[in-house]
Amino acid sequence: MIIRQIRITPVAFLDPPLLNAAGVHQPWALRAIVEIVTDEGLTGLGETYGDLGHLGKVRECAQALIGLDVHALNTMYARVTAIVGEDAQRVPTASQERSIDRVFSAFEVACLDVRGKAAGVPVSDLLGGRVRDAVPYSAYLFYKWAGHPGAEPDRFGAALDEAGIVAQARLLIREYGFASIKLKGGVFPPDEEIAAIRALHEAFPGVPLRLDPNATWSVETSIRVARELDGALQYLEDPTAGITGMAEVAAAVPMPLATNMCVVTPEHFPPATAARAIDVLLLDHHYWGGLTRSSHIATMCDAFGLGMSMHSNSHLGISLAAMTHLAATTPNLTYACDTHTPWQNGQDVLTPGTLRFTNGSVPVPTGPGLGVELDRDALAVMNEQYEKCGIVARDDTSYMRRINPSFPSTRPRW
Amino acid sequence: MIIRQIRITPVAFLDPPLLNAAGVHQPWALRAIVEIVTDEGLTGLGETYGDLGHLGKVRECAQALIGLDVHALNTMYARVTAIVGEDAQRVPTASQERSIDRVFSAFEVACLDVRGKAAGVPVSDLLGGRVRDAVPYSAYLFYKWAGHPGAEPDRFGAALDEAGIVAQARLLIREYGFASIKLKGGVFPPDEEIAAIRALHEAFPGVPLRLDPNATWSVETSIRVARELDGALQYLEDPTAGITGMAEVAAAVPMPLATNMCVVTPEHFPPATAARAIDVLLLDHHYWGGLTRSSHIATMCDAFGLGMSMHSNSHLGISLAAMTHLAATTPNLTYACDTHTPWQNGQDVLTPGTLRFTNGSVPVPTGPGLGVELDRDALAVMNEQYEKCGIVARDDTSYMRRINPSFPSTRPRW
Repeated sequence: MIIRQIRITPVAFLDPPLLNAAGVHQPWALRAIVEIVTDEGLTGLGETYGDLGHLGKVRECAQALIGLDVHALNTMYARVTAIVGEDAQRVPTASQERSIDRVFSAFEVACLDVRGKAAGVPVSDLLGGRVRDAVPYSAYLFYKWAGHPGAEPDRFGAALDEAGIVAQARLLIREYGFASIKLKGGVFPPDEEIAAIRALHEAFPGVPLRLDPNATWSVETSIRVARELDGALQYLEDPTAGITGMAEVAAAVPMPLATNMCVVTPEHFPPATAARAIDVLLLDHHYWGGLTRSSHIATMCDAFGLGMSMHSNSHLGISLAAMTHLAATTPNLTYACDTHTPWQNGQDVLTPGTLRFTNGSVPVPTGPGLGVELDRDALAVMNEQYEKCGIVARDDTSYMRRINPSFPSTRPRW
Repeated sequence: MIIRQIRITPVAFLDPPLLNAAGVHQPWALRAIVEIVTDEGLTGLGETYGDLGHLGKVRECAQALIGLDVHALNTMYARVTAIVGEDAQRVPTASQERSIDRVFSAFEVACLDVRGKAAGVPVSDLLGGRVRDAVPYSAYLFYKWAGHPGAEPDRFGAALDEAGIVAQARLLIREYGFASIKLKGGVFPPDEEIAAIRALHEAFPGVPLRLDPNATWSVETSIRVARELDGALQYLEDPTAGITGMAEVAAAVPMPLATNMCVVTPEHFPPATAARAIDVLLLDHHYWGGLTRSSHIATMCDAFGLGMSMHSNSHLGISLAAMTHLAATTPNLTYACDTHTPWQNGQDVLTPGTLRFTNGSVPVPTGPGLGVELDRDALAVMNEQYEKCGIVARDDTSYMRRINPSFPSTRPRW
């Protein structure tokens, strides 16, 4: 099954004004859809970041993969390394490694999709077979404005205090059935976010809660907040920056610490495990080099006694399918996964119906490959949106500063 | 592709009197051949240990896998865990884990063989694709008697001093073309083995040498020997027992330390890496839970900066094929692998010709699956040998004591 063509289509979809440590989501979120076409006419799908710099690397690497067999993942990785590694030579090794893995990932997913289709089995079967029939996701709450500045309010409304956050949680849980809740923090002073978690804890007794301030806190603030939230959090995600800081916090707080920031490549494992910096790793196949490599990371987590959850950026259905197959085949991925799916508000490049949420979980697709089909009309519309939207890279900070020129980027902020 | 039948055939083949730390190889070596037959009539091959205790577990687990799809590796692993884990409850966790992985391995290899045959691709393609077309193996030297007591000398002759070892190396290199040499030590006092390494170093200048005394030395002896062999060894394998002892040696000696003894399950990684006990891991898919799990371990080694080689017990061609596919697809497995193949002296359960050595390397089979075919007549002969040979478990020590009743089992011996 030789790769004859790789189509890469950047897309944009409407994104609500979700607040976070870096600023606020722009009106359009970007992704890129990868289609690998083989000599036998099979097509495999992948989805990756849509930022222009990344897109350029993906396009350059795609050319280098034409003519390879869809099984030749090691050779593909070597070719991506040769291209991306050279570009990245002046950055630290970990960034270089991450850059390679980010580019490689979408190709790997698309190759697995092709192979699953050829063999008539779901991608989950290529990853060892599913250990659960549905993958639980969490309600991913964001502080947000009612709408983008100058635009009508969106249907989610504002969430700028604990009452707004609890209302948002009710909406997402009513619509999706989520049984865990994650709050993106790092937006307001810690005491306000403590109040939000306490309000959620009271409104949803027994529902696991997580808070992710994206490393905006000092070690001291992290320890204070964590102690105040004793008993209310399932885990605290990235309270502070870096392995050393996280280790200081971990040693002093009552709940597990999770990360998708201080451990993002295999080479972060030795220092992080030596320092006991984290308890839970948030896997993300988009930057851990695809589904197969992510399964290796899961084994590593198991060996080192780390729990596993899953990280999410704004994404579409191809990514949701890939995440679901991966989580379904990872026995030790026992925390509900993060997803931005509700914030897509129904927008997708897939024909509707394959992926659905039932009681907060996505049933694992059982059709061949990823089990999803591209909607070419929807893809064309979203590509047109990409061309017209004027955004070429995610930049939450610049967008925020157009509204609030004094928005700080100091770290730690509190 | 549903598993309808699993045939397990114990076999025995003639084994020369190879001396080692535990005693001496018995006249017959045992293995078990696993055949998985699917509803579509495809057959997949695996090979594992033939000791009676292990055989019983493999047979019990085989029954529990009937009816599963060949992709359902996670479910198979869970079922093996349920059966073997229960048996192993009274032993330490690491032993339990190892026991499960040892039983699971042969089934996993056989399933990959089936899947490769169904897809028309070699097993190496299911493991990411080969990064080398041939896998280098080392000349695995043993001190040995001329023949088993009471029997005619075998064609390899005696090797009881440095001259014998050098002659044996010349024979194996002439016949196989090996470009690396490993000496199984722990047989004679360390100074005699130092002399053997020095003689090899002189006779084969530039050829990488390794010595493996199987943890028969104290920390002090290990350090003394290692220092005396500075410049002569590519790596020193398991000079002393345990992670703590190995770490003491590693901190004091000039060459890398390798192991297939102190790190044999994923849970050994945290203490071994924390203590910097080893530099090279000898992978062995027979006890690391099969080929896929071994590829996870390779990622872990890469993350922790460990080199990789491959361990070998007495084995037949199915194992050699599996080892070759695994090594071919593991980019960071850069040391020549160990193999006992020469000591089989041509005995095998495979139709001859598929696996061959060229300049010390085995070209990776390119046919579907493992790329090898069972010779049913040879299998029947070897099974008859198993039934008649009277050996049901490897026991080098008891066999040695029939000849030398005072053979010690104290550790460290020197």
